[in-house]
Amino acid sequence: MQQLNIILEPLTREAFAPFGDVVEIEGAKHFAINRGTVERYNDVATVDTSEQDGRTLISIVCCNELATLPYTLPFVERHPLGSQSFIPMDNTPIVVAVAKAGEPPGSDHIRAFISNGQQGINYHKGVWHMPMLFLNADQRMIVIDRGGPGDNCEEHHFPEEEIVLSRT
Amino acid sequence: MQQLNIILEPLTREAFAPFGDVVEIEGAKHFAINRGTVERYNDVATVDTSEQDGRTLISIVCCNELATLPYTLPFVERHPLGSQSFIPMDNTPIVVAVAKAGEPPGSDHIRAFISNGQQGINYHKGVWHMPMLFLNADQRMIVIDRGGPGDNCEEHHFPEEEIVLSRT
Repeated sequence: MQQLNIILEPLTREAFAPFGDVVEIEGAKHFAINRGTVERYNDVATVDTSEQDGRTLISIVCCNELATLPYTLPFVERHPLGSQSFIPMDNTPIVVAVAKAGEPPGSDHIRAFISNGQQGINYHKGVWHMPMLFLNADQRMIVIDRGGPGDNCEEHHFPEEEIVLSRT
Repeated sequence: MQQLNIILEPLTREAFAPFGDVVEIEGAKHFAINRGTVERYNDVATVDTSEQDGRTLISIVCCNELATLPYTLPFVERHPLGSQSFIPMDNTPIVVAVAKAGEPPGSDHIRAFISNGQQGINYHKGVWHMPMLFLNADQRMIVIDRGGPGDNCEEHHFPEEEIVLSRT
């Protein structure tokens, strides 16, 4: 089996733009609210959940099985009917692997990112991504995604390749 | 001026039910996803943002002015067109004061809660609440609320009363 090593890139708004949004205050439009006592960094991710009578869900995900780096990517999936956002509730870095929306990607189209702990992400509708992994057993993440009718998950596997994400 | 002292109650799903949802894993419906590696606590808050061509926003709020307890409630406000959720990104407790949706409340209809640090809240559409306050200067919160046309904020003041929130 062929092995492909993908080195994690630092998560930045610019680098992640082809795949979705980075949920962070850096670089976001902001203004004071509540008579100046609170600063609002506004509308940092595009929530797109209304297709086929969809609605927006708020959920929480927790770790059942801890992951470590280097990490072998099991497969990628996409949600053709809606966006999906993951935001850590406890300042823990997250690792994501992604490929652009469209035809199932070749392994050479996958990019992987690690966050700085202060960032969440929002996958745009149809963007291929690996299932969420946890590097910290106590981590919890807020999920903002679509609920509603229709088949909203497709998987794509790489049976001939071992795709490994690593820091170096 | 008359003074009214309101003692903070522990935030629980049951106590907060007349005003909205508690965003937490305790007591939430859950199931395993991603081949068992992740536990999803599903649909823990009712996002209600579509009225008058509204859409769901994800934003982040940060502290510009630190608050301390006891705290004098400045006023209450409501958003007649949509729900509004605040979820801490860093395990910090939050304090909220609320009154049921409907006519502007009397001060004796206000209740106040303090979270355990692991909880967020979601105000249902039209619920009266005090502006968000920060007890920790570094705290950040995710906000999930409505953007779109229309006047979505009304305030109600208590000019004759000093309403004070305290732990005891």
